[in-house]
Amino acid sequence: MQESIGTLVVAGVGLIGGSFALGLKRAGRVGHVIGVGRSPENLRRALELGVVDEVAQDIAAVAGRADLVLLATPVGQMGALMQALSTTLAPHAIVTDAGSTKGDVVALMRAHLAPHLARCVPAHPIAGSDLSGATAAQYGLYENRKVVLTPLAETDSDACNTVGALWQACGARIERLAPLEHDAIFAAVSHLPHLLAFAYVDMIARKPNAARCFDFAATGFRDFTRIAGSHPEMWRDIALANREALLDELATYRATLEQLEAAVSTGDSARLTETFDTARAARVAWNQRFMRQG
Amino acid sequence: MQESIGTLVVAGVGLIGGSFALGLKRAGRVGHVIGVGRSPENLRRALELGVVDEVAQDIAAVAGRADLVLLATPVGQMGALMQALSTTLAPHAIVTDAGSTKGDVVALMRAHLAPHLARCVPAHPIAGSDLSGATAAQYGLYENRKVVLTPLAETDSDACNTVGALWQACGARIERLAPLEHDAIFAAVSHLPHLLAFAYVDMIARKPNAARCFDFAATGFRDFTRIAGSHPEMWRDIALANREALLDELATYRATLEQLEAAVSTGDSARLTETFDTARAARVAWNQRFMRQG
Repeated sequence: MQESIGTLVVAGVGLIGGSFALGLKRAGRVGHVIGVGRSPENLRRALELGVVDEVAQDIAAVAGRADLVLLATPVGQMGALMQALSTTLAPHAIVTDAGSTKGDVVALMRAHLAPHLARCVPAHPIAGSDLSGATAAQYGLYENRKVVLTPLAETDSDACNTVGALWQACGARIERLAPLEHDAIFAAVSHLPHLLAFAYVDMIARKPNAARCFDFAATGFRDFTRIAGSHPEMWRDIALANREALLDELATYRATLEQLEAAVSTGDSARLTETFDTARAARVAWNQRFMRQG
Repeated sequence: MQESIGTLVVAGVGLIGGSFALGLKRAGRVGHVIGVGRSPENLRRALELGVVDEVAQDIAAVAGRADLVLLATPVGQMGALMQALSTTLAPHAIVTDAGSTKGDVVALMRAHLAPHLARCVPAHPIAGSDLSGATAAQYGLYENRKVVLTPLAETDSDACNTVGALWQACGARIERLAPLEHDAIFAAVSHLPHLLAFAYVDMIARKPNAARCFDFAATGFRDFTRIAGSHPEMWRDIALANREALLDELATYRATLEQLEAAVSTGDSARLTETFDTARAARVAWNQRFMRQG
């Protein structure tokens, strides 16, 4: 296991990738950071801000120098990136990612990096935000946050432990899950609420009296809809990448909502109280634990 | 119009009623505050904390001394309170409320306080929170918050202006709406998201792997579900009191969600992006305005 890394190539220099680079730099765990991205303007800002030391638009041009590659783009771009990596990667180089879905990343790794699977470490840092771009990169983003590793059967423990150690150097706590278990859990606790929030704000925005509605929206609305300010392309990719699990959760939610709608419609006071009580008790207990442990 | 009030009777000494009393006390706009409630323990705390100067469990025993009565209980208790008030109220006494729905409060006022409508001022301070009880009462809760007045045709302007001036003394900004317009707007921006959040947490709490899900829930989950920690009885009353408008919003939301579900199911990437883009743009624009103006 390596405690530090020579050259890091980060594809996608935004909140997630940029904050990882900054975290490693502050901890003295990285020698040189190369940022790769589609937007020259974003790369220029990343250089100016000291998030990266060098930039490139084509990952194939720099991947051969990488000791570690972090794919921190929307999942939809990862296949092409892996394909570009496959021919240039040094044998010892570790490939990891920061995607919010893991079944699809595992499948892409198997498709594009088959000879390199021992050095592939699928990972998911749980530090979402509605911010994006290099200017969103920040020290301390991963402080006390969870990072879930979902190693393949083929992943060697040295690669897995190195990736874990680097995230720990950024302040994160490491968890391990099987890829499918990861995707089922995150469909429920993250992907579904994002979809619900996007749908809700979209609905309000299309109302004839939308402006009037927005005038009177307050703190409850603010918190409930914060995640609807998230990156549309990233969340489209997540919704499609984790389609099966997300559709399962959507079906369950729709059924729950229909029951609640029936209770409102028929004035079933007991049913409403029971649902609201269950929800409140669970939310209060969760929040106490979350505030204590993160 | 009176700039201050002699004796205030607050029915329901929780976050909303208690913070109104504290705000008026700090501004020197009230002489004496009598707290009325069902829980002796909560009343005792309200006395200890200086939120009220005197307590009573039966509103009929103290209402005759009121210059202003604020009904700050869940809407479901207001009918009985108004009935108790009706026989003891002094002719000059103003009756106002802090209910989140207004059509039903207006109907209750018409039913129980018919001879007194000139002094009835239905109102809604927009300062929700998941906190409740006398210990939640706080100075400054209404600072820069909106209070919506929905006066009746019969309400005299002196009563309406007095209630407005008292809320302004607490730091609030006054808006006026017709009761039905109020209820339609708040069904959309407040009551629907509360129902959606309660339904969501209830659904997660009932999953076989609920504990595991809660383990990985993070900041997005925290914000999206904050309002599911709200007062179950209060929200049951709101859902039933504003049933028609809420069912309209629920139907529209369900249709939006079904379209989104179809887009996920068929992999309609363009549709997902369009919805997410619309939602994000609206949320970002709203938040900028809200942070500036409240």
